[in-house]
Amino acid sequence: MILLADNLRITQPAIGRAVERLDPGPIRRLARACRQAGAGAIDINSGPLSRAPEEKMTFLVRTVQESVDLPIVLDTANPRAMAAGLAACSGRAAINGISQEPEKMARILPLVRQHEGDIIAYLLRPDGQVPVDAAGRMEAAIALFDTLQRADIRPERILFDPVVVPLAWQDGNRQNMAVLEVIRTLPDLLGYPVRTIAGLSNLTTGAPDPEARCRYQKAFLPMLAAAGIDTILMNVLDPAILDIARSSRNITGGEIFTWQ
Amino acid sequence: MILLADNLRITQPAIGRAVERLDPGPIRRLARACRQAGAGAIDINSGPLSRAPEEKMTFLVRTVQESVDLPIVLDTANPRAMAAGLAACSGRAAINGISQEPEKMARILPLVRQHEGDIIAYLLRPDGQVPVDAAGRMEAAIALFDTLQRADIRPERILFDPVVVPLAWQDGNRQNMAVLEVIRTLPDLLGYPVRTIAGLSNLTTGAPDPEARCRYQKAFLPMLAAAGIDTILMNVLDPAILDIARSSRNITGGEIFTWQ
Repeated sequence: MILLADNLRITQPAIGRAVERLDPGPIRRLARACRQAGAGAIDINSGPLSRAPEEKMTFLVRTVQESVDLPIVLDTANPRAMAAGLAACSGRAAINGISQEPEKMARILPLVRQHEGDIIAYLLRPDGQVPVDAAGRMEAAIALFDTLQRADIRPERILFDPVVVPLAWQDGNRQNMAVLEVIRTLPDLLGYPVRTIAGLSNLTTGAPDPEARCRYQKAFLPMLAAAGIDTILMNVLDPAILDIARSSRNITGGEIFTWQ
Repeated sequence: MILLADNLRITQPAIGRAVERLDPGPIRRLARACRQAGAGAIDINSGPLSRAPEEKMTFLVRTVQESVDLPIVLDTANPRAMAAGLAACSGRAAINGISQEPEKMARILPLVRQHEGDIIAYLLRPDGQVPVDAAGRMEAAIALFDTLQRADIRPERILFDPVVVPLAWQDGNRQNMAVLEVIRTLPDLLGYPVRTIAGLSNLTTGAPDPEARCRYQKAFLPMLAAAGIDTILMNVLDPAILDIARSSRNITGGEIFTWQ
């Protein structure tokens, strides 16, 4: 189970300012802290980058690459920023992401075809809405799998994201149980060792306080781990959540167990 | 998901002394603390009670019943203590428990037939050993189910315990993943809404320190909850574990979610 740091977000004021000023310091410190905490990869969430997307994404990728030797995930809906990020990457960056939405598919699929890294595929409906149950997510997985197969994308490159929803949504707990079912079922459904990813912080959108946020993330993370998730997008700088991620990985990892 | 308190154990010195002296005070305080913490039932783990088993078990049951209005689980391998406990119970006590072991079956099954409460059935081999994998546990479940059916015990009374093992065992983590698989699979295997129970503290037998014990119990409890466990036998007086039990129940419970 890979812990993918969600900490590098342009919406964080210190990171937003650093990107505006092309100041590598805060980004470098954050990337190093994530690696130090045990992140196995770093998500660069640049947002849409409406002004100077190429320059900013190139700066972000280079700064992270110079700071830590970790795989990079490029998290932007802007195809110009995505293309610049992929070009700036010395290794293989993962693309975050595509879905059935026709516009997103049209913009991002050409980049997926030109590069070799992983691609995160969101199990959303073609209208961009979250399916209401496990069956809807399975349908989305089959449709996305077919589209990517037809575009000659190898299945091994795909990381399916079954879309964790806020617990505060109507039916939020049932939906997240459906997420677990989808993670368990996809390998049988698609007939190969499907990899999956989930964004943990979505779970607690709308939580009344940081304590509730932490409490529910700590309870749901082991459930994801036991369902067989490959990658968790999460705040690796929260020690309590990191702690439970490590223990969960130790239980589910299948290697020789040692107390850690 | 019911939290069954494992706190009332005769091996705890204060409880052992109270039972010897027939002093209800410490037992009453402990039972009330468990109810206060949110226990849904109390396990009375009296051990074998080699001297005066009837008197001591009757004292234990009466003291707990007078202290709290919670279901009682009688946890002893001594059939005389079990019979006395069942007789002393004003409600329906659960019997903890039976397994395929011929001697245990011969001693306890008559009591199961005479009473109406739940019966905890351990998925052990006939020689009393823990099966090495999920398949061995399923075999034990089928064999126990058949034996109990032949004895006219209604399936709804059975709580199957797939036997959590110490992580420190060789293959301990894989075995506990098999436990989760068994919990998920039993309803399909036996064809009715099978209820299951698991003892959480077993997981961390041999943990190097209380911190490691707490950390791994916190990670495994949500996995049990997501697998569909009905009852968790656990230390309800550890606030960190109780906290994650409540959050897990809130996520998996299927009721309208509210932040708690």
